Amino acid sequence: MFITTLGSHSSLQILHGAKEEKFNTAIITDAKRESFYKRFTFIDKYLVYDNFDEAVNHINSINNSIFVPHGSLIEYLGMDRVSKIKVPIFGNRNLFEWESNQKKKMSLLEKSNIKIPESFESIEDVDRLVIVKLPGAKGGKGYFLARNKSELKNGINTLLEKNIIKNLDEIIIQEYVIGIPMYFQFFYSPILKRVELTGIDIRYESNIDGLKRLPWGNETEPTFVVAGNIPVVARESILPKAYEYADNFVETTKNIVPPGIIGPFSLESVVTDNLDIIVFEFSGRIVAGTNLYINGSPYSWLYWNEPMCVGKRIARELNIAIQQSKLDVVTT
Amino acid sequence: MFITTLGSHSSLQILHGAKEEKFNTAIITDAKRESFYKRFTFIDKYLVYDNFDEAVNHINSINNSIFVPHGSLIEYLGMDRVSKIKVPIFGNRNLFEWESNQKKKMSLLEKSNIKIPESFESIEDVDRLVIVKLPGAKGGKGYFLARNKSELKNGINTLLEKNIIKNLDEIIIQEYVIGIPMYFQFFYSPILKRVELTGIDIRYESNIDGLKRLPWGNETEPTFVVAGNIPVVARESILPKAYEYADNFVETTKNIVPPGIIGPFSLESVVTDNLDIIVFEFSGRIVAGTNLYINGSPYSWLYWNEPMCVGKRIARELNIAIQQSKLDVVTT
Amino acid sequence: MFITTLGSHSSLQILHGAKEEKFNTAIITDAKRESFYKRFTFIDKYLVYDNFDEAVNHINSINNSIFVPHGSLIEYLGMDRVSKIKVPIFGNRNLFEWESNQKKKMSLLEKSNIKIPESFESIEDVDRLVIVKLPGAKGGKGYFLARNKSELKNGINTLLEKNIIKNLDEIIIQEYVIGIPMYFQFFYSPILKRVELTGIDIRYESNIDGLKRLPWGNETEPTFVVAGNIPVVARESILPKAYEYADNFVETTKNIVPPGIIGPFSLESVVTDNLDIIVFEFSGRIVAGTNLYINGSPYSWLYWNEPMCVGKRIARELNIAIQQSKLDVVTT
Repeated sequence: MFITTLGSHSSLQILHGAKEEKFNTAIITDAKRESFYKRFTFIDKYLVYDNFDEAVNHINSINNSIFVPHGSLIEYLGMDRVSKIKVPIFGNRNLFEWESNQKKKMSLLEKSNIKIPESFESIEDVDRLVIVKLPGAKGGKGYFLARNKSELKNGINTLLEKNIIKNLDEIIIQEYVIGIPMYFQFFYSPILKRVELTGIDIRYESNIDGLKRLPWGNETEPTFVVAGNIPVVARESILPKAYEYADNFVETTKNIVPPGIIGPFSLESVVTDNLDIIVFEFSGRIVAGTNLYINGSPYSWLYWNEPMCVGKRIARELNIAIQQSKLDVVTT
Repeated sequence: MFITTLGSHSSLQILHGAKEEKFNTAIITDAKRESFYKRFTFIDKYLVYDNFDEAVNHINSINNSIFVPHGSLIEYLGMDRVSKIKVPIFGNRNLFEWESNQKKKMSLLEKSNIKIPESFESIEDVDRLVIVKLPGAKGGKGYFLARNKSELKNGINTLLEKNIIKNLDEIIIQEYVIGIPMYFQFFYSPILKRVELTGIDIRYESNIDGLKRLPWGNETEPTFVVAGNIPVVARESILPKAYEYADNFVETTKNIVPPGIIGPFSLESVVTDNLDIIVFEFSGRIVAGTNLYINGSPYSWLYWNEPMCVGKRIARELNIAIQQSKLDVVTT
Repeated sequence: MFITTLGSHSSLQILHGAKEEKFNTAIITDAKRESFYKRFTFIDKYLVYDNFDEAVNHINSINNSIFVPHGSLIEYLGMDRVSKIKVPIFGNRNLFEWESNQKKKMSLLEKSNIKIPESFESIEDVDRLVIVKLPGAKGGKGYFLARNKSELKNGINTLLEKNIIKNLDEIIIQEYVIGIPMYFQFFYSPILKRVELTGIDIRYESNIDGLKRLPWGNETEPTFVVAGNIPVVARESILPKAYEYADNFVETTKNIVPPGIIGPFSLESVVTDNLDIIVFEFSGRIVAGTNLYINGSPYSWLYWNEPMCVGKRIARELNIAIQQSKLDVVTT
């Protein structure tokens, strides 16, 4: 059986883990990156596309395969093409639509009794520090901070002038919670019926994380483009709340977007100085921060006592599902 | 034989390591966290307490057990209750009292020929940048920086007004050394008669490590609540001095607080741009930064060539001690 | 056969890896650090020197040995003494001279079609934010930033007044690219004929990375002394460009400094918010950031599926070369 994925984001990890679990592996990659992926011997098959329609055809062309979606899938292919994927997908494909709509997304968190930042519908309502985000996994491009309405209006005008957005519906204005970022990576196994914490990371963003090192203040406009990830562990006393949130989220998605979350998801959070966890976003698929933990994370070792990255964990879940004739439970 | 600990801080690591070394494991946890700890299969026994007196009773109730103290023990139970623990404790229980008294604590470092920051008895003596700390492992809560007497007085008044402290005896005014934090984690084996470096970490503190990412300056009051830890390695040429300090510290504690340090301890340091190591605090037990290295640290691999977290190292030391009929050498 | 190295920088990793690969190991160390290195059981032989001439004699005294140079070699011994090393060196000793000359160094990058920052020959040409560097692996000592000619002149005058430099030829004035640092660590195997990414790190510098945590601005002069390293992974979509640069660099050195790069090298880079990689320096030998990955990095696991630090990778390359009677291909 083949495990396949789109060449980007966390595809090396996904296919390396698949090979560890004795699957055949195939990558669907654009021509420019083919030579890059050919460096890795754990990839059995290369399907090279010139355009995204061809990418979908390639995905569908591999018999006896399961496709693993990752955080860049929708950004690359778009919702329409993703809906044309006919092979089984690991995870819940019904979640894609919810993820691409910021309001539906935040509502899933809210219904899970998870603390979230305030969102502002109207510029006029803004009464605190906010961050303006562009939806979709654009990796932080175009994000900016504003301390008040006037900074907010200026920033939005710049986005409009530069044609980065066409109208205000395209942006999200969210309270910027003061605290430290922590991205909690989870895995829900519908076979083992448990949530596992697979790791925690911090995003490493250009240029903001470089600007911090300049000895002077406000001279360069900060940008928030994710270029990498840094490992972190949390105080043990924070973890019960993080797991509770994860459990709640799994339950909510079971009810509202059946069959609910399957496999990796992430609660992207700020931890305040009261040690509160405020979740400002979630990812319903494998996140790039898991690339830190190809050899397992401090948390995955608590469960598995062997190197267990999320890519391998997905393949392991598929193997257990196959053994129990429950492949339909983990794919859609 | 059972290894037991209090559910918090580094208890997952301690019990995971104990199980790896074939001990039975028990956790003493409050009711709220019971379901959290039940997620982990390496814990054999759960003793749930409603109040801290019951916690001590639980600790004492397990026959043929060794209790492993960690950095949150005194903060949770208080010195009086800890003194009522009747089962053998891994490590030197005589150190607890020294750790809870800031002056005695710093004197142990000073007597070890370890460079430490200047401490100020009186506000009027302050002539440089200082940090004001509240004693006890409060995780940095209430800490603040002051550049001069007037900022210092303002900060202290706030602590008094908010009833965070009742009088000046409760605070420590310490020179704030300019440099970068590095927390050196060591393990002293009285059986193998050697100091091992088990890892180095940086604390990840809310909100100060988030404020750095704001493009403007001094608008939000910084706080220093430890919410996590980030891994780091040191230049190899710094390590000889760090080990020398660790050796000295082991010797000092042997003389002054017999039988001296046993097992994990940490020298919490700032490294200056002269590559000097200034130690501003120590921990006489396992620190939370070791949670980074469940699968071993870059340094532990130099000794053990197998995954060796500090939790497992404790259990290993107990196993070696048992084999050599020296359990009394590593417990008090 | 012996693998030997100079006691500093990454010598623990080099000799630990050598022992893993069944070589005998020897360290050439100064008297002060002898007791430090005696803590580690994987070192078979200690040759203690009182002066650097003696160090070279020690290196040459070990029969049937291969000497592994690291990033501190030239800084300690100087070019003249290094040229007196008569035993085989792992890697290309012809590169040392190129590395010690900043202009020749940058030209190798330029000829590899690698994006580099602008360099300024004359103070009068400076029209943007620059960093002033002192050549040689001084670990960032004396570096400073300047926003304009007047700050630049002030900084240079300070260096001259403090006798840190004697004339302007000793400094490099380089455009300071706004973005985030990423140090890409590679290994080129002339036996397997491939470039491997062995890890990525961020330098942890005193005092600049501590100053970030001060709530006020420009009161303390920042310094850039490397005291440690922090692990990081990159967005997968950045990696093809990084590998392309590495390939180009290997080719260029083959042509210009034959036999070209052998073994570890590093492309020290800034990643901009366009996700461009700008390489501001390279190292032709093992860098200290590899000390993070004694148990392998997220990337090395993709190749080796076993713990594979760069020290061990060097020894593995030597073993493969010996098996194929190609020792001359990896030593000079």
